[in-house]
Amino acid sequence: MGSLLKSRDNLVVLKIGGSVITKKEDDTPEINRPNLNRIADEIGKVMSNRPEIKLIIIHGAGPFGHLYAKRYDLQLGLQSDRQIKGIGVTHRWMEWLNHEVVKTLQKNGVKAMPFQPSAGGIMSDGKLVQFPLNVVEKFLDLGLVIVSHGDVLLDNRTGIGILSGDHLAPYLAYNLRANRLILGTDVDGVFTADPKKDPNAKLVKDITPNTLEGLKIGGSNSTDVTGGMARKISELVGLADKGVASEIINIAKPGRLYKALMGDRMQGTLIHKA
Amino acid sequence: MGSLLKSRDNLVVLKIGGSVITKKEDDTPEINRPNLNRIADEIGKVMSNRPEIKLIIIHGAGPFGHLYAKRYDLQLGLQSDRQIKGIGVTHRWMEWLNHEVVKTLQKNGVKAMPFQPSAGGIMSDGKLVQFPLNVVEKFLDLGLVIVSHGDVLLDNRTGIGILSGDHLAPYLAYNLRANRLILGTDVDGVFTADPKKDPNAKLVKDITPNTLEGLKIGGSNSTDVTGGMARKISELVGLADKGVASEIINIAKPGRLYKALMGDRMQGTLIHKA
Repeated sequence: MGSLLKSRDNLVVLKIGGSVITKKEDDTPEINRPNLNRIADEIGKVMSNRPEIKLIIIHGAGPFGHLYAKRYDLQLGLQSDRQIKGIGVTHRWMEWLNHEVVKTLQKNGVKAMPFQPSAGGIMSDGKLVQFPLNVVEKFLDLGLVIVSHGDVLLDNRTGIGILSGDHLAPYLAYNLRANRLILGTDVDGVFTADPKKDPNAKLVKDITPNTLEGLKIGGSNSTDVTGGMARKISELVGLADKGVASEIINIAKPGRLYKALMGDRMQGTLIHKA
Repeated sequence: MGSLLKSRDNLVVLKIGGSVITKKEDDTPEINRPNLNRIADEIGKVMSNRPEIKLIIIHGAGPFGHLYAKRYDLQLGLQSDRQIKGIGVTHRWMEWLNHEVVKTLQKNGVKAMPFQPSAGGIMSDGKLVQFPLNVVEKFLDLGLVIVSHGDVLLDNRTGIGILSGDHLAPYLAYNLRANRLILGTDVDGVFTADPKKDPNAKLVKDITPNTLEGLKIGGSNSTDVTGGMARKISELVGLADKGVASEIINIAKPGRLYKALMGDRMQGTLIHKA
């Protein structure tokens, strides 16, 4: 633990939104290769320029998770025997995506290590109550980049549940005392309205626990099984209150992830204590 | 825990030797598809005939693990920075094999759930000292078949180490109070000499702690990074002494795995307390 406490200023948790690295073609999940290659290239350059960074990457599942989780109603908890088969099937699709992400990162010089949340994690009513944090910590101390993902997890109350990357990333950032949590999405940040529908929508450059209440949030691009933008913001404000600032940035735009990891915190929406 | 204690008579740990389901072609690891398909078919038929069985499958890595573990000298523990990259690369190859095993089992109706040992396990001098047994137990209770494998693990003393499937399988069998441990290999069992070289080599039908000392063991087909047959037998005799009997059978021969899982314990070498 000692070495990580010393170096917590260098610990960054990066969430890569599933929508950025995946796509759906004729109802079949596909990887968005140009985006994945570019993002892996940007991360590779950062890790070679700033080897002192300890990095945890959590990627969403996009259709790889959602299609199968919905097919087997896994978000409802355990209700019928039909769902049991779906746990392994859904996990396998997410793992396949993880495998491709890890391989692409490794090709770009990143010392990537896959990490299966369901092999050590347990939830209770959708919140993580067990996770092998000491294993994550030791891999980081060795210099590996942890690459984990949303997953189907055991749940003490509902039998099974969906662990969203949007829950796992803040959980790790908080419990491992990360200095920064970067949420990479395909939108520029948090807007006052949906920018795709409302020309007056404005980017909110920063949010604090004090400014949250007066804020009207729109522009959620998320209608997935794991909840939308408003819930995310509320969780992140709570996290900022506990000392972990976060940023929502558009990593579908080339160069932004690289700049963010190199230190620029002002590209999207910064959620901080004040 | 209660439900598992009740049903421990039905818990079987099956090790599938890497040599059975993999092969090497021009120094490249390949899957032995005919063997894998047949084994998955036999397991699928058993699980449909005997749904009360709780099954943990541990497969070896064959060249998928050994080629890369050796390339990065992972069996030596952590000695140089060059090895760090190799941890993730080696794990990724083993995971790819695991993915194919799981997919094949699922196609044959088995409710297979992949399980990454390195995501929750820690060793000390090559022995497991941490493993999320409660997660394994809960998945089994849901009716899933755990499919895990040899892996590269953190080691408290050597930094990193190789977790052999031949260590993981007995570890799980003992700690989860399995009724049977079946070691599926490509030889008929333990012989008095190498049957490929010595025409007088005899199959040893059973071994107990009392008969071990007088036994001359030959026929190890194992020169891998994780140790040979003599060490395996010695571990298994120790396990039998603690109450978990094991069998070494030839699952490269069609039908033997099916018969073993259906209850036949006399096909190869039985290692028991007496």
